[in-house]
Amino acid sequence: MSPAKSEAPIGVFDSGLGGLTVAREIMRNLPKERIVYFGDTARVPYGNKSKTTVIRYSRQIVRFLKQQEIKAIVIACNTATSMAFDEVREEAEIPVIGVVEPGAVMAARTTVNKQVGVIATRATIQTKAYTKAIHAIDPEINVISQAGPLLVPLVEEGWLHDRITDEIIMRYLDDLLEHDIDTLILGCTHYPLLRSEIRKLVGDKVTLVNPAYETAKELERMLAESGLENEKAVEPDEPYPYRFFVSDEAERFTDFANSILPVDIKTARIIPIEEY
Amino acid sequence: MSPAKSEAPIGVFDSGLGGLTVAREIMRNLPKERIVYFGDTARVPYGNKSKTTVIRYSRQIVRFLKQQEIKAIVIACNTATSMAFDEVREEAEIPVIGVVEPGAVMAARTTVNKQVGVIATRATIQTKAYTKAIHAIDPEINVISQAGPLLVPLVEEGWLHDRITDEIIMRYLDDLLEHDIDTLILGCTHYPLLRSEIRKLVGDKVTLVNPAYETAKELERMLAESGLENEKAVEPDEPYPYRFFVSDEAERFTDFANSILPVDIKTARIIPIEEY
Repeated sequence: MSPAKSEAPIGVFDSGLGGLTVAREIMRNLPKERIVYFGDTARVPYGNKSKTTVIRYSRQIVRFLKQQEIKAIVIACNTATSMAFDEVREEAEIPVIGVVEPGAVMAARTTVNKQVGVIATRATIQTKAYTKAIHAIDPEINVISQAGPLLVPLVEEGWLHDRITDEIIMRYLDDLLEHDIDTLILGCTHYPLLRSEIRKLVGDKVTLVNPAYETAKELERMLAESGLENEKAVEPDEPYPYRFFVSDEAERFTDFANSILPVDIKTARIIPIEEY
Repeated sequence: MSPAKSEAPIGVFDSGLGGLTVAREIMRNLPKERIVYFGDTARVPYGNKSKTTVIRYSRQIVRFLKQQEIKAIVIACNTATSMAFDEVREEAEIPVIGVVEPGAVMAARTTVNKQVGVIATRATIQTKAYTKAIHAIDPEINVISQAGPLLVPLVEEGWLHDRITDEIIMRYLDDLLEHDIDTLILGCTHYPLLRSEIRKLVGDKVTLVNPAYETAKELERMLAESGLENEKAVEPDEPYPYRFFVSDEAERFTDFANSILPVDIKTARIIPIEEY
């Protein structure tokens, strides 16, 4: 593999803001890697769209990302991973990682009583992607799923530490806790932002699995195995090791990004993604 | 005006499901009129998109509706009315009515203490469309606005009569009630579905203005003035006086429509709206 190739950025995409929690874990855990992020802020959310539509949108994004000369793609969106993983891999022709598999592997490894809960968007739950991925590892694990459609709007409204948010989380988790789960997958990239609330509500006996973190670790393994890891540290004065593109509302995006990322980003460029 | 023209349907469009509350009022108040409805369910919601994007999407929808040989257009979406009314009128070349003006007129006529509240999506509030329309009638009216981004997801989750919904409504209305409003505009087409909850919470002293109803009345006036009203009752056995088109998730759309419309709809056809 040529050095030029290993210095190429990782392409990361999501339906909007949530995937930034995955970008954050890559920045923290793989500080030498460059990132090109695309957030489909014009067409967010994906969680209530059909498979056909999510596949069409994901293919357009992959075509855009490939023009940025990336070396690998991370689908930082549970819905897109659940609905369009195979199509993204076909379109990409470079290594692709989704968020579902790494989260499922960690959950299967963590559970002792074999009762695993998943909260995610309606679309992700309907695909049964987590259930299938966990059963491929251990068919004896009982996977209990719950769609939580209000959690993304609550995060985007900024009500992160709020009594109303707590009540809504508890309503969604009620059934899972009755099943005595010992492991809970935060199956939507927005949910890690509610992690401390969820931790407080489920108590110490339930292990929270954050697929964003597991995905960064899986990316690290994959890059090492394929000789694609960047061994040269990014120069501190390199102007744009992280570049951000969106389909709409660039300013709201950068505000949100700066509230959760370990680095400050100045701009996000708007791309007419429908034309790709 | 030829009889054929007056028998043509009204084109009604919205970002998704909310505009069905406007279609419902047209069905109730103008039973002789045919309707072609388009709901942009692939790209919903419009409430957090930029003006440029909402204009582009609205123009595509108008081009589709015009192929259905409609005689007039109702923009059954507060965000699209606030952001794209002039562009829709330019593209349409037939009479166009939005939801903002009729709601603003009724609010200005209703208020006694000249304190009017508006709740709407973030995008509608940012355009100040209701404030401008009310001030054009009476600049002395004090318009107090509040964005309520969680209300649409709550309606779509079906939590219509729910303690959590009540709490969220109260948090949004708190500031408006402190201003002693005597009139409240439900400035998003989803909100009439929360009308009985809002009524319960604000009490008898506040008059609720439902722009969906006012828009149907304005449509009636406009059709009469321009000689476009349909004078022949639709035959009871006419198969499709109401036709529905969406950009995604047709089944979820018909389920929702059948829960709120006075007639049963069998199907909604999916249209590749990006190609218009």
